[in-house]
Amino acid sequence: MLGSDYDGQNCSIARTLEVVGERWSLLVIRDAFLGVRRFDDFQRSLGLSRNVLAARLTRLVELGVLTKVAYSERPARYEYRLTDRGRDLLPVILTLADWGDRHAPNPAGPPRVFLHRDCGGHVDARHMRCEACGADIDSPRQITAPPGPGAKSAPVPLTAAE
Amino acid sequence: MLGSDYDGQNCSIARTLEVVGERWSLLVIRDAFLGVRRFDDFQRSLGLSRNVLAARLTRLVELGVLTKVAYSERPARYEYRLTDRGRDLLPVILTLADWGDRHAPNPAGPPRVFLHRDCGGHVDARHMRCEACGADIDSPRQITAPPGPGAKSAPVPLTAAE
Repeated sequence: MLGSDYDGQNCSIARTLEVVGERWSLLVIRDAFLGVRRFDDFQRSLGLSRNVLAARLTRLVELGVLTKVAYSERPARYEYRLTDRGRDLLPVILTLADWGDRHAPNPAGPPRVFLHRDCGGHVDARHMRCEACGADIDSPRQITAPPGPGAKSAPVPLTAAE
Repeated sequence: MLGSDYDGQNCSIARTLEVVGERWSLLVIRDAFLGVRRFDDFQRSLGLSRNVLAARLTRLVELGVLTKVAYSERPARYEYRLTDRGRDLLPVILTLADWGDRHAPNPAGPPRVFLHRDCGGHVDARHMRCEACGADIDSPRQITAPPGPGAKSAPVPLTAAE
C-alpha cells in the first residue's frame, strides 16, 4: 500500500510533487495557464468527475497555487486564477511538454506550440528563452500557445523504448 | 474512480505524465541522476516496498527511460542506468527542485545544490545555464549536486499559501 505522501524524503522535488504530483493536478494547472478559469470549463476540458475536480481545485487553492475569486455575487460564482506561486510553475509545465514532444511525439506534430509573444519565435523550453531573438522567458505573459499541427489528431499511446 | 491514464488528453504534458506521473517514478529518476544504480540502493534511498519499486523500475525500463544492465553473471545481478531519453528529463527534475526550493523551502536551505562542474557556479534551473559563467547546461554531466545547507535537517511539511 502506497502512502499518501513522500514521507521521509528531504527533497525539494518530493515537496513539489506534494503540490503537483496528484493525478490531474498538473493538467488543471496547464489549463489555468491556457486561460481556463471556471469550474465548468475545467470540467469540459479535462473530462474528469466533478468531485475529483472540486477536490483538486480546493487543494490547489489551499496550497496557494490558485486563488478563488468571485466574479458574480447573485448568484455567487467563482473563478480560479493562478497566483504568483502558480505562475512560477511555468518552467515545469513547459519542460514536461517539451519532453513529451521529443520522446512521445504526436505523429502530426505537437498539439500546441509555444511562441514568444514579442517576436513570434519558438520558445526553447529547456532554456526558457526565445530561439529567434534570444530573450529570456520569465512569465507566461511573454508566451502565446496556439494550436500546433497535431491539435486535431487523435492522441497516440505512448510507445516504449525508441 | 480515477482512471489509470489521461485518456482523451491530446497533450504533450499528459503524455509525459504517463511516464513520470506515477507516484515515486520521478524520485526513482532523481536517484538515477544522483548515481544510484542498484535495486537495494534505490530501496534504501526511497524506503518504499520492494514490490512497488520493482514495478516502477520495470515500467521505466519498458518506457525506455532506464536500461537494465548485467554487472555480474554469477550470480546474475543487474543495475539500472538512465538512457538518453531518461537524461533528457534533467530540465523537468531541476525545475521541480527549483520550485520546491522557492515555494516550499527547507528553513535550513536547500537539501541539495546544483553547481556547474566547470566553474562551480550555481545552476539557474529555470534557464538551464550557469549563473556565474553563463554556459548553457544541456547534460547532467555538466552538473555536480552536493548536499546543501538543508541536507541534515528534517523535512518540513509543505505550508499552504504564503
